[in-house]
Amino acid sequence: MSRFLSQRFAALEAYTPGEQPQDIQYVKLNTNESPFPPSPEVIAAVSAAQVAKLNLYPDPTCRVLKEKLAALCGLAPENVFISNGSDDILNFSFMAFCDESRPVAFPAISYGFYPVYADLYHLPYTAIPLRENFRLEPEDYCGLNRNVVIANPNAPTGRAISPTDVEKILASNPNHVVLIDEAYVDFGGESCRGLIPRYDNLLVCQTFSKSRSMAGGRLGFALGNADLIADLEKIKYSTNPYNINRLTLAAAEAAVDSNDYYVKNCLIIAENRAYTVAALSELGFETVPSVANFIFTRCGSIKGDDLYRRLKAKGVLVRHWNKPEISDYVRVTIGSREQMDIFLDRVRELLKEE
Amino acid sequence: MSRFLSQRFAALEAYTPGEQPQDIQYVKLNTNESPFPPSPEVIAAVSAAQVAKLNLYPDPTCRVLKEKLAALCGLAPENVFISNGSDDILNFSFMAFCDESRPVAFPAISYGFYPVYADLYHLPYTAIPLRENFRLEPEDYCGLNRNVVIANPNAPTGRAISPTDVEKILASNPNHVVLIDEAYVDFGGESCRGLIPRYDNLLVCQTFSKSRSMAGGRLGFALGNADLIADLEKIKYSTNPYNINRLTLAAAEAAVDSNDYYVKNCLIIAENRAYTVAALSELGFETVPSVANFIFTRCGSIKGDDLYRRLKAKGVLVRHWNKPEISDYVRVTIGSREQMDIFLDRVRELLKEE
Repeated sequence: MSRFLSQRFAALEAYTPGEQPQDIQYVKLNTNESPFPPSPEVIAAVSAAQVAKLNLYPDPTCRVLKEKLAALCGLAPENVFISNGSDDILNFSFMAFCDESRPVAFPAISYGFYPVYADLYHLPYTAIPLRENFRLEPEDYCGLNRNVVIANPNAPTGRAISPTDVEKILASNPNHVVLIDEAYVDFGGESCRGLIPRYDNLLVCQTFSKSRSMAGGRLGFALGNADLIADLEKIKYSTNPYNINRLTLAAAEAAVDSNDYYVKNCLIIAENRAYTVAALSELGFETVPSVANFIFTRCGSIKGDDLYRRLKAKGVLVRHWNKPEISDYVRVTIGSREQMDIFLDRVRELLKEE
Repeated sequence: MSRFLSQRFAALEAYTPGEQPQDIQYVKLNTNESPFPPSPEVIAAVSAAQVAKLNLYPDPTCRVLKEKLAALCGLAPENVFISNGSDDILNFSFMAFCDESRPVAFPAISYGFYPVYADLYHLPYTAIPLRENFRLEPEDYCGLNRNVVIANPNAPTGRAISPTDVEKILASNPNHVVLIDEAYVDFGGESCRGLIPRYDNLLVCQTFSKSRSMAGGRLGFALGNADLIADLEKIKYSTNPYNINRLTLAAAEAAVDSNDYYVKNCLIIAENRAYTVAALSELGFETVPSVANFIFTRCGSIKGDDLYRRLKAKGVLVRHWNKPEISDYVRVTIGSREQMDIFLDRVRELLKEE
């Protein structure tokens, strides 16, 4: 910290992303990436001719991509906000919709960035405990009279609530924004975006990072009432209007056009998830029911941090948090069948070493 | 504006970028883009093999690019911050280093985003008038006891001050950050980055958008004391850690490796600038002395907004602002010789129509 940093940020603890080793080859099951490359259409779209146009600014309105996503989602372009990853949407939403008089609530165990945003903007927030086995109880979010942020499916657990449950929360907090972070919805969850025409306080946030194999491209999008979207645009145009580059736009447009490819890949991930959960169960692991592209699991005989470290030593990266409520668990991304077999083999080796 | 937006932003006026028409073919001299494509090395670097890896997150630390830029600039990697365009750096700097007790000053005529950032964060700010013919007087920024932001060369005028002048400002504001925005330095200005080892309050901000033909790739960088850079990293890791995508990183690394290509292009732009200024002078225009890739010029017989509108009708886009002090002028990007000849021909046509 320099002597010039505003005192507002003296105590700020930044978010810690999962490890992204760029050198050694790991079986990388720690940051919920897709094991599949982008579709052939995406690879064709980022052509040398496109790269040759990098001297020109991108379209800051992202018009074509908005139209394509609106058509895909059964909404209008003015219901779509395009962002540099979905973190961008979360950042803007905490900034735009929350303040001293508009506090925010989110689950006590969820995406670790929510409290960072709350701290960054000095927002009063309530972290609502999950129930048994990390179940999110919708009633706990009803009538809160504050903004609500829920990852659905939740992270790092993979558990989801239904659109009917989301609707209860929306209806009982009519004067506050309910942000449903659907980063992991495409692997078996159910999107609540169908509620947008009826609830002007619903903001749904999705990403191309997971189901659309574009974590490296940085593209997220929000869906909501046109006025909410206009607020996000205002923040974007007051911070960094050109934050989506040309190549990512071209790639994302092609990804929407080749949606079937990604739908198929999501089905494969769901199969690999069932396969992995069953195999782990035979090995004595207890896994939280997941509809995401990851599982949250614990081993009866090996502690969470040991499991993380010993798997890493064997070339398999998973994620572990040193928080008391979840320190028994590791989060394991569901990759290809080959990746999951290597993971399971390494786990079997570890269990034999006990 | 929705009924949910925090009252903090009720009066906020977002920045208005220059027009980016995506349909009709204009001779586009309105947003200071380079007329040259990226180097052949950049086009080769964004290969199908790179695109096929988009399923994986980029390196959030941007290690390789930092090392290359540090070597190019004669600094260490910890003196380099990588950002999503240089607007990102401006945004983070206004946020991180300014507050009620650390106000900010910048020229009254300069990059239009500075007052937007000040308003966004509710910062007290001083807009310091320029002197005769838009000259920036360094003494006006000495001993201010506040943070200082100066575009050097300044926009939209193209005039520059020397590193010696910057040093006076640095030395006389030792307890505040002096941010020198060098977006346009490579076309004939002189960077003050050599002062970084001696002034811990100097932050220099540059971009790949102009001289490096990468406006479409979104890449900026800041140079400064390691502690200042660490502050910017803290803000990045508290907002959007993965804001630089894989393809832009690959392109930017190749751009640094092919630096000579860009140096040559900058010399061509400087020649085209001299050519254009001379031709305009013969046509009775008065042009502010510029070392940037644009000129700020006025016509004796046609008002600024008329010139802008009538050139647009003839297929040439330049930029005009409806601000009293500068409404006589248009800002014209210096493009290729062919583009400047079309621009000059259209101007000659307009003058005949008078």
